[in-house]
Amino acid sequence: MKKTIAIDMDGVLADVETHFLNWYESDYGKRFTKTDLIGKSEEDAFPKAGVIKKFAATPNFFSTVPVMEGAEKAIAALQQHFEVYIVSAAMEFPQSLREKYYWLEANFPDIHWKNIIFCGDKSIVNTDYMIDDHIKNLDYFKGKTLLFTAFHNVTVTHHTRANNWKEVLTFFEKEI
Amino acid sequence: MKKTIAIDMDGVLADVETHFLNWYESDYGKRFTKTDLIGKSEEDAFPKAGVIKKFAATPNFFSTVPVMEGAEKAIAALQQHFEVYIVSAAMEFPQSLREKYYWLEANFPDIHWKNIIFCGDKSIVNTDYMIDDHIKNLDYFKGKTLLFTAFHNVTVTHHTRANNWKEVLTFFEKEI
Repeated sequence: MKKTIAIDMDGVLADVETHFLNWYESDYGKRFTKTDLIGKSEEDAFPKAGVIKKFAATPNFFSTVPVMEGAEKAIAALQQHFEVYIVSAAMEFPQSLREKYYWLEANFPDIHWKNIIFCGDKSIVNTDYMIDDHIKNLDYFKGKTLLFTAFHNVTVTHHTRANNWKEVLTFFEKEI
Repeated sequence: MKKTIAIDMDGVLADVETHFLNWYESDYGKRFTKTDLIGKSEEDAFPKAGVIKKFAATPNFFSTVPVMEGAEKAIAALQQHFEVYIVSAAMEFPQSLREKYYWLEANFPDIHWKNIIFCGDKSIVNTDYMIDDHIKNLDYFKGKTLLFTAFHNVTVTHHTRANNWKEVLTFFEKEI
């Protein structure tokens, strides 16, 4: 039986960081860069407080988010050797549920609906591996963890880190 | 830490059986009873083949399903001693995602969004207990199982059975 991987959406499969920068510029007229956000929390990423939660609760935010660079090819490569599950903490923003489903269908058509999980917290998810950008999901996970780099996690040192999808594949080449 | 229970929606929290009987009568003009369905599979429950899947894929089916008798009080009682998660295989019918979310919010307001999971299959769900009406979900589950009686599972003998929510509570009184 193939080993199982739980893969996060926002910040891992979906480039929400670029999307936040674009939406912020569109709504507030100021262009920030990825470098500007490095080391900040999601709460204080932008001068307008709470703007990330506001965007996440806005219809069409999740349906229009760009795919993270390299994610399509990496998922296809991983599926050859592993059972890939997409596990997204979507329940805080219920309008995102259908948007996330159709975004996956459009961008990752080879991911079967049986392998999609939308949850609140991820504490009852049991796979062999988890790829996520949030330590709140990784810290209590019982399998092997891989922290996908995001602006808000650059100081974290207690999980194996992948800076991009190429590094994810390098990690899993040793796990086959 | 409280022990965890994964509780199914359709056929357990939600009385889909009554709903199927009502919708069938409304669409095809014939009234069947719960007794008529006993021992049949979901596929051959009604003379019209595939009608259950058709109803499940129809907008407003899941938003209007009645609550299973005794479920509200039982969930409240269980929450005092256990961490209750609602785990529904909703992904086959993506239109159901938002309907199921808002149905839970309306009928079970004390269930936090952090404790809701919509999935495809349930194979990566890891809780101490699972209550479900389908053996495909219970057979590979590693914790303790409780089969909630439904017309399609009356011949199953390899799981502990609960015929109603009162019997679920009797089972869990011994597990506290």
